[in-house]
Amino acid sequence: MKAHTEYLTMHLPTKAGFVNITPQVREVLRQSGVQEGLCLVNAMHITASVFINDDESGLHHDFGQWLEKLAPFNPDPNFYHHNRTGEDNADAHLKRQVMGREVVVAITKGKLDFGPWEQIFYGEFDGQRAKRVLVKIIGE
Amino acid sequence: MKAHTEYLTMHLPTKAGFVNITPQVREVLRQSGVQEGLCLVNAMHITASVFINDDESGLHHDFGQWLEKLAPFNPDPNFYHHNRTGEDNADAHLKRQVMGREVVVAITKGKLDFGPWEQIFYGEFDGQRAKRVLVKIIGE
Amino acid sequence: MKAHTEYLTMHLPTKAGFVNITPQVREVLRQSGVQEGLCLVNAMHITASVFINDDESGLHHDFGQWLEKLAPFNPDPNFYHHNRTGEDNADAHLKRQVMGREVVVAITKGKLDFGPWEQIFYGEFDGQRAKRVLVKIIGE
Repeated sequence: MKAHTEYLTMHLPTKAGFVNITPQVREVLRQSGVQEGLCLVNAMHITASVFINDDESGLHHDFGQWLEKLAPFNPDPNFYHHNRTGEDNADAHLKRQVMGREVVVAITKGKLDFGPWEQIFYGEFDGQRAKRVLVKIIGE
Repeated sequence: MKAHTEYLTMHLPTKAGFVNITPQVREVLRQSGVQEGLCLVNAMHITASVFINDDESGLHHDFGQWLEKLAPFNPDPNFYHHNRTGEDNADAHLKRQVMGREVVVAITKGKLDFGPWEQIFYGEFDGQRAKRVLVKIIGE
Repeated sequence: MKAHTEYLTMHLPTKAGFVNITPQVREVLRQSGVQEGLCLVNAMHITASVFINDDESGLHHDFGQWLEKLAPFNPDPNFYHHNRTGEDNADAHLKRQVMGREVVVAITKGKLDFGPWEQIFYGEFDGQRAKRVLVKIIGE
């Protein structure tokens, strides 16, 4: 069994946004040489997500609006007790739960075994600082 | 390490619905001969989910109502910008995020290592066409 | 390839709550002797979650309030059809979907390969009884 580990660094200039990291994950897979196995991709920070969906800017706009409705930003420590710690990012911890921490992707014949529209995204909900994404590949 | 890959085809006659695919996944596991390992099951389309919950029709009704409240169908391209592409399925992309893309199930002594009520479901949110589900098993 | 399986038993005295199970998972990893691989941790019950987020009591309060707003407790079988079975825990099945069933964690150099704040939690939404969590480790 082979194991291969890479860390991607994300640094969004904005508070929130979505970045297609499929090319980077494909490159890690190529370097690993694994033909059959599993590829885990996860945010290493708890106010960010890794998820699979469509590479379409209108949909990303919709994700942003929708998440803001489900888990609105509110710095008031009476609204979110987490913000009593001096942070103002409680909403980002909630948004990340909706979008998820990680994806596990099958590797078949040396490729990410994807359906026609599947792309891997990094989702940032409390940006303007460097955060890491882990890519772990195991297989043969 | 063994690796085994199968693709299930789902074709729901309705826009939305839930299908218990546990028997098909068990059959793939049997064919793989894997005794100890991991089984990934994921939707290969981005308006569908694979998740684990209860095989109870009342609950499935509740999932449908609840998802409609969290992420209502609305073809208006001013409500969901994704629908400016000519699609009307933005809500299905959001619903899929709540229910999830994939499950990873432990394989122990040749069986899906499940709790008493765990069953694997395919969740369709934009049906009436063929879609695929990937089952990837690795182990020994 | 090595495989190692452990079952943790959780028994919360309250209906709902969050328990940091990172120490137990670390101990299972130590016993496995795996240096490179993947660690799956999942709830074996469908009204509970395993997820990764912050070990901060204010945030856990916020999770509780937020989930109650997204999927309120309501024993009325006209509100949740699942409760026509005689159960009153439909809301717990929904809450578990938001928080997720499982996490997959990379194992690198014999450690859980975590970012600075990542901790593994058991989330209970219908407690006061014993439930199990599965820890499955594969690797070398």
